[in-house]
Amino acid sequence: MKQKRYFLSEADLPKQWYNIQADMIHKPMPLLNPVTKQPMKAEDLYPIFAKELCHQELNQTDRWIEIPEKVREMYTYYRSTPLVRATGLEKALDTPAHIYFKNESVSPVGSHKLNSALAQAYYCKMEGVTNVTTETGAGQWGTALSYAASLFGLEAAVYQVKISYEQKPYRRSMMQVFGAQVTPSPSMSTRAGKDILTVNPNYQGSLGTAISEAVELARMTPGCKYTLGSVMSHVSLHQTVIGLEAEKQMEMAEEYPDIVIACFGGGSNFGGISFPFMRHNILEGKKTKFIAAEPASCPKLTRGKFEYDFGDESGYTPLLPMFTLGHKFAPANIHAGGLRYHGAGVIVSQLLKDGYMEGVDIPQTESFGAGCLFAKAEGIIPAPESCHAIAATIREALKCKESGESKTILFNLSGHGLVDMSAYDQYLAGNITDFTLSDEDIRKSLGEADSPNQ
Amino acid sequence: MKQKRYFLSEADLPKQWYNIQADMIHKPMPLLNPVTKQPMKAEDLYPIFAKELCHQELNQTDRWIEIPEKVREMYTYYRSTPLVRATGLEKALDTPAHIYFKNESVSPVGSHKLNSALAQAYYCKMEGVTNVTTETGAGQWGTALSYAASLFGLEAAVYQVKISYEQKPYRRSMMQVFGAQVTPSPSMSTRAGKDILTVNPNYQGSLGTAISEAVELARMTPGCKYTLGSVMSHVSLHQTVIGLEAEKQMEMAEEYPDIVIACFGGGSNFGGISFPFMRHNILEGKKTKFIAAEPASCPKLTRGKFEYDFGDESGYTPLLPMFTLGHKFAPANIHAGGLRYHGAGVIVSQLLKDGYMEGVDIPQTESFGAGCLFAKAEGIIPAPESCHAIAATIREALKCKESGESKTILFNLSGHGLVDMSAYDQYLAGNITDFTLSDEDIRKSLGEADSPNQ
Repeated sequence: MKQKRYFLSEADLPKQWYNIQADMIHKPMPLLNPVTKQPMKAEDLYPIFAKELCHQELNQTDRWIEIPEKVREMYTYYRSTPLVRATGLEKALDTPAHIYFKNESVSPVGSHKLNSALAQAYYCKMEGVTNVTTETGAGQWGTALSYAASLFGLEAAVYQVKISYEQKPYRRSMMQVFGAQVTPSPSMSTRAGKDILTVNPNYQGSLGTAISEAVELARMTPGCKYTLGSVMSHVSLHQTVIGLEAEKQMEMAEEYPDIVIACFGGGSNFGGISFPFMRHNILEGKKTKFIAAEPASCPKLTRGKFEYDFGDESGYTPLLPMFTLGHKFAPANIHAGGLRYHGAGVIVSQLLKDGYMEGVDIPQTESFGAGCLFAKAEGIIPAPESCHAIAATIREALKCKESGESKTILFNLSGHGLVDMSAYDQYLAGNITDFTLSDEDIRKSLGEADSPNQ
Repeated sequence: MKQKRYFLSEADLPKQWYNIQADMIHKPMPLLNPVTKQPMKAEDLYPIFAKELCHQELNQTDRWIEIPEKVREMYTYYRSTPLVRATGLEKALDTPAHIYFKNESVSPVGSHKLNSALAQAYYCKMEGVTNVTTETGAGQWGTALSYAASLFGLEAAVYQVKISYEQKPYRRSMMQVFGAQVTPSPSMSTRAGKDILTVNPNYQGSLGTAISEAVELARMTPGCKYTLGSVMSHVSLHQTVIGLEAEKQMEMAEEYPDIVIACFGGGSNFGGISFPFMRHNILEGKKTKFIAAEPASCPKLTRGKFEYDFGDESGYTPLLPMFTLGHKFAPANIHAGGLRYHGAGVIVSQLLKDGYMEGVDIPQTESFGAGCLFAKAEGIIPAPESCHAIAATIREALKCKESGESKTILFNLSGHGLVDMSAYDQYLAGNITDFTLSDEDIRKSLGEADSPNQ
């Protein structure tokens, strides 16, 4: 009987995060102050983030960053996550490929998001912060931050996009069980929210607005810091525990991946599993292929443009050098809420530019079909986001079937879909549609924005 | 840093289930044919269950029953489940007790139910069965059976109590993703269902009715067998993988439990974690205390009567010697749907009678309070059923705090509550009530039934 799952002992868990910036041939370009267009220094970010996180964000020299002991202790609550040989999926596809997945869905909050939430909450606590705030859409990140805050004795205030607050009550309840204060955004609790509600009292909210509210709360409240769940380089840094564990676990399985796949929203789960393997491509010339699976309706990697753009819709953030569809891009209302983001983090953007990775776009119906096949074969119902990684994996595995090659494929199962069952309901009822974007749509979205490059 | 979680390697997973019947001083009394009052033989159960399961049901001689290799392979999909030191909970309670829990919630379907579903589906497949059927209330068991059936290529038909079908759509969707046909019960697809709907077209269903429908389907359909998720002795047998693993994992932690706790519906999760430890009480005079935590609103262990009774409301099953509140007992509509059952399995009933274990009853509000405390401390939101075990654990841990004793407590976290968040919502909103039963209520329920003992 083939071994199915691989775990690391607590003694073998990573003691450091891997900072790929130190090894990159072309370093990411600097973040720019949107007014002065000058590069941002760590100190410029202090008003928003915990200081240590500001330094991690811009660190391009230290390859290894120590994981604080307290965070390592918290990691043992659910790590190592298992590396699993997807024998059921291999059989269902009748492929000679060896398929492995790293199962981040076993985290208490159901996704990889906790890896960074614990680190961010820790650094906030260490510098005497008492309150943390953030925005959340579907709620994966908000749930992770709420639990992390509860563990470190911090108060958490989460602005949840109003339509999700109402349509995804389970995620809201989870945050509340963990003790967080959850406010539907836009709200009357901030200037940003009030301004919008005055003009449009029935506005259903957007991630952009929720970010503005959370950032405003952090700026205006002594002892309060803002946190976020993807895009920023320090978030990807924390997520490298995934790939570092997977590297050791693949060794236990006596394999090395030919292909590494993850779904792609802002890039943190992709970076988390990829970067530790990618360093061997950069440093030792290994030839592993890295595939980021994005939704066809939000194709910043495959059809976006590399340029300086804002991280949020309203233009409050620094300017980021990234692949983007334009910060005014309004993604279609697909179920994979975590992938509905207009841009890619600065590290992955540079790596894509330099050819170390590639993007692939997945239509929504293909993603749910892949998710259902995986569920029947492996028993785990994947998050709509993770379904994109599975779909890309299936494509590669079927190529192997055609060519007869038994490549080793590793993908990241970033989360489970147990609180997204209504999306599966709609898929099974035939009510899921694909959204297509014309080149004109994209040109328009990129051009329409008051482009900071002009 | 204290080690938090313990896993077994696949080589160390149990190869046999433990059949406590072989070691019991007083064997369980026989199941009786309700018409002839004669003891049932395995052959008498063939029309309903797979043959091998009928023999396991009545086996009082073989201490160890081989786990088929195919089932062991399926177990490796999620087993061993972790044994976890609940350091967060210990800290929150400030108790000198050492608290451990066996985390069955990491199973793909979110509960321990899969341990028996895989075995039952396997034996059905082996004897050429093509279809399996069952009933489900809240849906934990139905989900497990649906997934197990999908793995073994069996068609599954699940009768789900109509009110749950409508109120718990997430569980229904999960079963459908796994490919099962889910029918709200009562339905027009069976005689039993038609009879009820003719008289009462708006009847919202009950577990009793759903059992009748599933049993009827199995009896009337060639190649179809009935399966069930608790109460029967063969189900508890399969669940002993939980306790057998826990025994080895407690050894890794260099501890042995003074107290073992599980919630109690029909007895399979309680038996699963308890029996392997209880054998040391029976055979070697160990003094471990075994506590079954039942809801105060359904107190068959603490306030029921030991007598022959039917396993279902309609009186279609054999007569079972058990602690019961009467088969016509209508439990209050608490959120822990899996504990709303009038009787206890025959093995646990005999063990309770003989003083090897004790029952404790937990009010609903106390259970949710315990669940929220646990969620904040350990990050896992427990199923409403499991909250009862946690509440009993907290009671014991607080006794330790008072006495200064550092007892070792082990409880079974039978499942997670991610698809039960609406119940937590109601708790946080202050809308959860306790149900009390007067002695008169219980006397009436026991007397009212057309008692098979008279």
